[in-house]
Amino acid sequence: MLSMVKSGELDVEEAKARISAQFPTVEDLGFAQLDIEREKRTGFPEVIFGEQKTVEQLVAIFQKLKQHTDRILATRVDPEKAAEAMKSLGDITYHDQARILTWFKKPILKVHEGYVAVVCAGTSDLPVAEEAAIVCEAMGNHVERIYDVGVAGIHRLFAKLSLIRGANAVVVAAGMEGALPSVVGGLVSKPVIAVPTSIGYGANFQGLSALLSMLNACAPGIAVVNIDNGFGAGYYAGLINKNRSVQK
Amino acid sequence: MLSMVKSGELDVEEAKARISAQFPTVEDLGFAQLDIEREKRTGFPEVIFGEQKTVEQLVAIFQKLKQHTDRILATRVDPEKAAEAMKSLGDITYHDQARILTWFKKPILKVHEGYVAVVCAGTSDLPVAEEAAIVCEAMGNHVERIYDVGVAGIHRLFAKLSLIRGANAVVVAAGMEGALPSVVGGLVSKPVIAVPTSIGYGANFQGLSALLSMLNACAPGIAVVNIDNGFGAGYYAGLINKNRSVQK
Amino acid sequence: MLSMVKSGELDVEEAKARISAQFPTVEDLGFAQLDIEREKRTGFPEVIFGEQKTVEQLVAIFQKLKQHTDRILATRVDPEKAAEAMKSLGDITYHDQARILTWFKKPILKVHEGYVAVVCAGTSDLPVAEEAAIVCEAMGNHVERIYDVGVAGIHRLFAKLSLIRGANAVVVAAGMEGALPSVVGGLVSKPVIAVPTSIGYGANFQGLSALLSMLNACAPGIAVVNIDNGFGAGYYAGLINKNRSVQK
Amino acid sequence: MLSMVKSGELDVEEAKARISAQFPTVEDLGFAQLDIEREKRTGFPEVIFGEQKTVEQLVAIFQKLKQHTDRILATRVDPEKAAEAMKSLGDITYHDQARILTWFKKPILKVHEGYVAVVCAGTSDLPVAEEAAIVCEAMGNHVERIYDVGVAGIHRLFAKLSLIRGANAVVVAAGMEGALPSVVGGLVSKPVIAVPTSIGYGANFQGLSALLSMLNACAPGIAVVNIDNGFGAGYYAGLINKNRSVQK
Amino acid sequence: MLSMVKSGELDVEEAKARISAQFPTVEDLGFAQLDIEREKRTGFPEVIFGEQKTVEQLVAIFQKLKQHTDRILATRVDPEKAAEAMKSLGDITYHDQARILTWFKKPILKVHEGYVAVVCAGTSDLPVAEEAAIVCEAMGNHVERIYDVGVAGIHRLFAKLSLIRGANAVVVAAGMEGALPSVVGGLVSKPVIAVPTSIGYGANFQGLSALLSMLNACAPGIAVVNIDNGFGAGYYAGLINKNRSVQK
Amino acid sequence: MLSMVKSGELDVEEAKARISAQFPTVEDLGFAQLDIEREKRTGFPEVIFGEQKTVEQLVAIFQKLKQHTDRILATRVDPEKAAEAMKSLGDITYHDQARILTWFKKPILKVHEGYVAVVCAGTSDLPVAEEAAIVCEAMGNHVERIYDVGVAGIHRLFAKLSLIRGANAVVVAAGMEGALPSVVGGLVSKPVIAVPTSIGYGANFQGLSALLSMLNACAPGIAVVNIDNGFGAGYYAGLINKNRSVQK
Amino acid sequence: MLSMVKSGELDVEEAKARISAQFPTVEDLGFAQLDIEREKRTGFPEVIFGEQKTVEQLVAIFQKLKQHTDRILATRVDPEKAAEAMKSLGDITYHDQARILTWFKKPILKVHEGYVAVVCAGTSDLPVAEEAAIVCEAMGNHVERIYDVGVAGIHRLFAKLSLIRGANAVVVAAGMEGALPSVVGGLVSKPVIAVPTSIGYGANFQGLSALLSMLNACAPGIAVVNIDNGFGAGYYAGLINKNRSVQK
Amino acid sequence: MLSMVKSGELDVEEAKARISAQFPTVEDLGFAQLDIEREKRTGFPEVIFGEQKTVEQLVAIFQKLKQHTDRILATRVDPEKAAEAMKSLGDITYHDQARILTWFKKPILKVHEGYVAVVCAGTSDLPVAEEAAIVCEAMGNHVERIYDVGVAGIHRLFAKLSLIRGANAVVVAAGMEGALPSVVGGLVSKPVIAVPTSIGYGANFQGLSALLSMLNACAPGIAVVNIDNGFGAGYYAGLINKNRSVQK
Repeated sequence: MLSMVKSGELDVEEAKARISAQFPTVEDLGFAQLDIEREKRTGFPEVIFGEQKTVEQLVAIFQKLKQHTDRILATRVDPEKAAEAMKSLGDITYHDQARILTWFKKPILKVHEGYVAVVCAGTSDLPVAEEAAIVCEAMGNHVERIYDVGVAGIHRLFAKLSLIRGANAVVVAAGMEGALPSVVGGLVSKPVIAVPTSIGYGANFQGLSALLSMLNACAPGIAVVNIDNGFGAGYYAGLINKNRSVQK
Repeated sequence: MLSMVKSGELDVEEAKARISAQFPTVEDLGFAQLDIEREKRTGFPEVIFGEQKTVEQLVAIFQKLKQHTDRILATRVDPEKAAEAMKSLGDITYHDQARILTWFKKPILKVHEGYVAVVCAGTSDLPVAEEAAIVCEAMGNHVERIYDVGVAGIHRLFAKLSLIRGANAVVVAAGMEGALPSVVGGLVSKPVIAVPTSIGYGANFQGLSALLSMLNACAPGIAVVNIDNGFGAGYYAGLINKNRSVQK
Repeated sequence: MLSMVKSGELDVEEAKARISAQFPTVEDLGFAQLDIEREKRTGFPEVIFGEQKTVEQLVAIFQKLKQHTDRILATRVDPEKAAEAMKSLGDITYHDQARILTWFKKPILKVHEGYVAVVCAGTSDLPVAEEAAIVCEAMGNHVERIYDVGVAGIHRLFAKLSLIRGANAVVVAAGMEGALPSVVGGLVSKPVIAVPTSIGYGANFQGLSALLSMLNACAPGIAVVNIDNGFGAGYYAGLINKNRSVQK
Repeated sequence: MLSMVKSGELDVEEAKARISAQFPTVEDLGFAQLDIEREKRTGFPEVIFGEQKTVEQLVAIFQKLKQHTDRILATRVDPEKAAEAMKSLGDITYHDQARILTWFKKPILKVHEGYVAVVCAGTSDLPVAEEAAIVCEAMGNHVERIYDVGVAGIHRLFAKLSLIRGANAVVVAAGMEGALPSVVGGLVSKPVIAVPTSIGYGANFQGLSALLSMLNACAPGIAVVNIDNGFGAGYYAGLINKNRSVQK
Repeated sequence: MLSMVKSGELDVEEAKARISAQFPTVEDLGFAQLDIEREKRTGFPEVIFGEQKTVEQLVAIFQKLKQHTDRILATRVDPEKAAEAMKSLGDITYHDQARILTWFKKPILKVHEGYVAVVCAGTSDLPVAEEAAIVCEAMGNHVERIYDVGVAGIHRLFAKLSLIRGANAVVVAAGMEGALPSVVGGLVSKPVIAVPTSIGYGANFQGLSALLSMLNACAPGIAVVNIDNGFGAGYYAGLINKNRSVQK
Repeated sequence: MLSMVKSGELDVEEAKARISAQFPTVEDLGFAQLDIEREKRTGFPEVIFGEQKTVEQLVAIFQKLKQHTDRILATRVDPEKAAEAMKSLGDITYHDQARILTWFKKPILKVHEGYVAVVCAGTSDLPVAEEAAIVCEAMGNHVERIYDVGVAGIHRLFAKLSLIRGANAVVVAAGMEGALPSVVGGLVSKPVIAVPTSIGYGANFQGLSALLSMLNACAPGIAVVNIDNGFGAGYYAGLINKNRSVQK
Repeated sequence: MLSMVKSGELDVEEAKARISAQFPTVEDLGFAQLDIEREKRTGFPEVIFGEQKTVEQLVAIFQKLKQHTDRILATRVDPEKAAEAMKSLGDITYHDQARILTWFKKPILKVHEGYVAVVCAGTSDLPVAEEAAIVCEAMGNHVERIYDVGVAGIHRLFAKLSLIRGANAVVVAAGMEGALPSVVGGLVSKPVIAVPTSIGYGANFQGLSALLSMLNACAPGIAVVNIDNGFGAGYYAGLINKNRSVQK
Repeated sequence: MLSMVKSGELDVEEAKARISAQFPTVEDLGFAQLDIEREKRTGFPEVIFGEQKTVEQLVAIFQKLKQHTDRILATRVDPEKAAEAMKSLGDITYHDQARILTWFKKPILKVHEGYVAVVCAGTSDLPVAEEAAIVCEAMGNHVERIYDVGVAGIHRLFAKLSLIRGANAVVVAAGMEGALPSVVGGLVSKPVIAVPTSIGYGANFQGLSALLSMLNACAPGIAVVNIDNGFGAGYYAGLINKNRSVQK
């Protein structure tokens, strides 16, 4: 490339652009270095992990990101912080079950074909499942929710099988013994993203039991994200569905 | 009781018998104290745990127990030890898949009504399932074997459901993610004895994954024994079936 | 079956009934899919796991289940939630030590012969033992409670031995080192359901010590449920006792 | 459906076909129940897990499956077993680094567009990476191999970045600290399947270190399979690439 | 030495001095034995671990140490305790992000050449990084802070690479998967002190994931301190930089 | 014995006494079975584990035990419960650092010769050390306290070595890396009771680090009790010292 | 002391002797620094841990120690090494069950009063129990062996209770669930040294189950040594018995 | 830089050189990508991790590296592989205790001032200590070895204290409880690199005990490397000593 620049084949601006694609600029807030070109590179802006951030930090990041993108997500925001942030920012929305704050410049247009199925085993797994669903929708995917269909009453799952089989990717959230992804994985031919939840007690060890079950699933076509990582599961399923659509 | 003896109300022999029911005599082999009255108390003689015993110890215990009982079981006997023990003892039988040595004075008579179902998830779980089945049969129970019906192809399980539902107790052996007992537990109304096997690799941690799954099973009616403990599972199921029959 | 329907041998309603026995209908509350035919299939209605449910969810489930069954249990309900639920529902009962809410259309009739023994090692294990006992009683079993008979003063256990030996199934709850089930298992010839409790400190690791002890119990005839799972233990023991009785 | 059969609207054969799609028949080998309709349902036949199977079992399964499919894979076959199986079966191929036995009735035709990138961190991760690559190819996908590009010399990764970015799915195998998927995940916008390997020593705990790293990866777009599960990773990536192609 | 004393070659005072260098005197506060000669031996006074100490104990230790040294540090002091201690002591300073209390008789003079780089992966790792930086500065070292440069956006790290490479020792704090030290270790030729933080959730296990990653780092030149041990990391880096300077 | 009773050789009362020595009577409080003959058998009355007991239960047990013994100890009583119990009972004493409630009918008379040394590594280990010391004293032993002599400043230990060496048993409490018992064990020839404390953070895992250190101590003459089990350590040391004295 | 030397009050030799009692000389073999004055200080010479040592190292250490002591023990010596060492050294004895090599200049004289009881739960625990017994005897203690009295048949223990109660210290070795020390601890008033063995399988985790049980024992008067550490247990019990005797 | 190239200020070759300093070329062997410019960047060539490599791979790497460097190290090479490699390569040296293969074009010249102390606790830790020492020497550092000075006989350590204190960096290897680094860390003012070894048994868990001890060391100035990672410890210490020297 250097020779091309030297010879004039390539002009300096173009060369800079090519290099900056590899070394994108960041927006420096002191406490954080925002990856503002992330959306350009990957199709989706940086998502804010809200758990350890203060309200002030959240607000500052939203304000800065608004200058560079038309959609912002912050996950793991508890209701108190969300309420305070909404007072400062006004135009953001709080999804209380999913504990997500979103801001959209314009309504999400469902641009991608097909859909993602978000399945969960029990009522207690709902927050994780909703986190996955909201993230997936924010990426422009259609989501079908199939909740409370755990293996202890497996007929509930069979009743929804066609809907699950029709999806391009399937998120399965389960706590306790985490057996649902194995059963689903044996019944569908699409990628399953298993997300263990920390629901349970005793030898559950805060989700370890479900995590190990899912990693050891004997059905193929299952990959696993961290315990309670609804965001990661939804993002991954959304990526698969989006890439199928984008391809055409 | 002492007063009754004093007054002659109770004779010394009878009193001794009552006490010895609580403090049974043992047969002292030096390296082992055989609980020879166990069969009288519990209906089944002491079972020999063969894993750390030498061939000499096994032979000595068989020879001594033959004087007190008409059936003997030794579990976890590897083929080499078994072959040597058979040379010394002649009239014993080796069940190679279950790794059990048995001796019966007379053929086992199926005395108990009903049956136990022994279910396993995969071909690799067979040794543990067979250990359970052989022990259960030695206790005088009829056993139905339903093998290789793991959750990755759940239709295989449904095809055998009536047979499983008809049992008085169900042993379910599974490795990897150990999800099968949860599914079975949701479909039957009889006690399920879940036995995790050490089959798997990586984050399976030699059966820990299956063990945790089974302890966290969301279906009721499931209890768990140690990893690879086919003997314990078979004995437990046999006890339930036997007690139902004995009761009448 | 299809051929039988075609030929008229089997009428459509009967065929439907046979199929619905395999695929029972559910009552969909949005956040939960109630398995309302469970009692018909297994003899006992679905039990509500109250820990992560809100008061509103609990009340809604009670109200719906009342239309389908004549007894309802919710476990792991803390006193605050219980008090609020009782205000809404009126005719329910709270068992504070066991943390269980119950509703019965009519008094429980003791229908099953024999009894279950519920044994615990120390005063601190009482809540778990009571959870087991209440569940067992709700299933129509008679329960004998034998509390605070841990191995550190083993004479306390011997004083109660006849009562324990007379039971058809024995629940043994213990924390700390969890040695009691091993000792009991060596003294009785009925199935023992061991339930480790999270009582202890330091290297107890919230019940792990007792759990491992019980899984490794050297006496046969012992199966284990999850840490603090009084419900599971009581249900399992109740199942064994009930099935014996039902059989006749 | 029953009514339709009754009325003649649906003939019995068609009804059976519909039902058998849900309950596929199996080929019963005694020790195994082969899921012979799996390919019809999911597009790929059942893969044999060779680790605990005997040579006789492997041969019997190959012979039976040949009647139903035109491609067979057995994973985790050690060289000794492979050599013996090849003597019996003749027309099978052994991939020694991947430890996979394959049989194809006709050459694999690359039917799917795009490609999968299989990346590994070190020379020692090659067997796992090759397992992924061979499985992926057997599914009809093109694979690009990028090996020995671990984070300790991160320039090696950057040199291959375009090739990785062009893939539809990226398998990343790494042992030791397992950091490579996080770095790759931050640089590409396609789904990354992270596969921890058991390479390392000491506090590596047979791959646990890499497994935890990958589950905790801070970059989105990463899902994880079991330690050393090259098969699972390759299958998953292949599924994503295949589904994109199939869709059109 | 004794012979030398006897012969008068060595006088008693000198001998005492030599011995006391090995057995330094302590200041006994009852609840604590202050190592008041530590600074003389090692160049830096004993640092107070504030976590389990009461305000009274903290104040008493500060007051006593002031008599023996001209700089005092107390780490892990929460804001409430700090506020109370400041009321009693007046002339101390609280570094709230680092949770450190300091007292200096006179301003710190930067006496050592060169500098230490303190690098952290995310905004949430700041408290640990600041603890390291403040300790390092209190030892008389210059510190360069490079924050929020985690591997998910690795271009942020490359932008700061020259600054990091110029340091004599590099502290790298990271939570989640803890991959940053491996990457840094492959790019610099100076000792890296890796400090895992407890930031993360689920299979992070309070910093275990990052700890294992760092211990298994495949790049050489990395050593690790305890989870969240910013003090230890800063002290260690400070020691390396100080010793280089002192040497001349 | 029965024959002796029959023949009149042994009278019934004497026989009963001999038997009751084996099966002591208990005082049944409903929620607890007090082992009131324990002091007669072992020289020390049952100690109350206060952690999970209510104030009402504590008071009831104190009141009952007062009828049978002249000294009562309750450990792990938090200040709130202690204050309430003192209101009800009046004549009890609370040792706040040790969190022990005691009642003595008459002052403890130091009856045993020799003494026990209670050593601890840091100021934060004081509560555990004090628990050990108070229990030991209540058993009638003299205790020497040697506190804050951890291995980071090993000269502090050497200064107290004669005092430690003179004891008949040595309790050593330490948190963090728990190295002190190894060093002490190499310097004394009396039994060392090592008690790990839960003091520390990060990879300390609530005392696991110190526990493992102590179990792996390379010096002989060291045995270990549970994490934070000051009571157990003090009781054990007291037993050794008492038995030496009693013997004469 | 220095002043006393200076003034002539204390002569140099005496001062040296006093100091060398604190800093004993060692015999340097290059690969090992033998603590040859250990016997003088503690009453028993250094015991050789044979596990990782070569035959050559063992022989060299025996030859050197013979010059300084009249008894030598090497533990954890496997039969092959023992046979080779005996060829070189001639006058040593191998205890094959305990895997200990001993050399005595003259026969052991039983010098200490009283005895130690060594109890074990099962036949498989014999090697560990024998290691304890041999070490204890080598220290000059009388040992009573009570083997195979595990809790699954608790009457075997009661039959030996008087013998156990008469000991000055009780070693209890047990594998599997490790419940025996708790039961023994509740029945005796002498110090119990619990030694977990690695006997068991599955969730035993190589002795972890028994170790945790023993650390959590609810009976007081129990301390624990490392898994399979028969040497440590025997040494500790021997120390207690010896010190009682020495005292007079 | 691009502008400078365009304007001719910087010529293309110079620009390439600057860039290649950031993206060094590699030597591609197919199975490995050798980082041949590593020595230029960091002062020491890439070290070969020999554990999973075949003899053929080792030989190929040695042959290739000889073209680029004048010193090569391969660690973790077992004696069999070493013997075969020496046959092929001739001029390499095997350090059998350290299990390292080295090749030097010319003798190592001790170029760096000062020295590194390598300390180990027991004879069994020698291989790890030697690995550290050999690596350190290969980097051009002088090493002082101080072996078998563990805390069970702490006087052995004090005898060598001056030698340890004189070093610029101290490697301390220890197994079992791993207490030695804490003690050394409290006595010296130079950076200590603690390396846990896997020596021990039972609750040692293959070095976990020592690892945790070292991470929790209460003395400052200690950093830790992976279990048995003598290479990492030696390299780190060598880096510190080298950098001090280089600086002048």
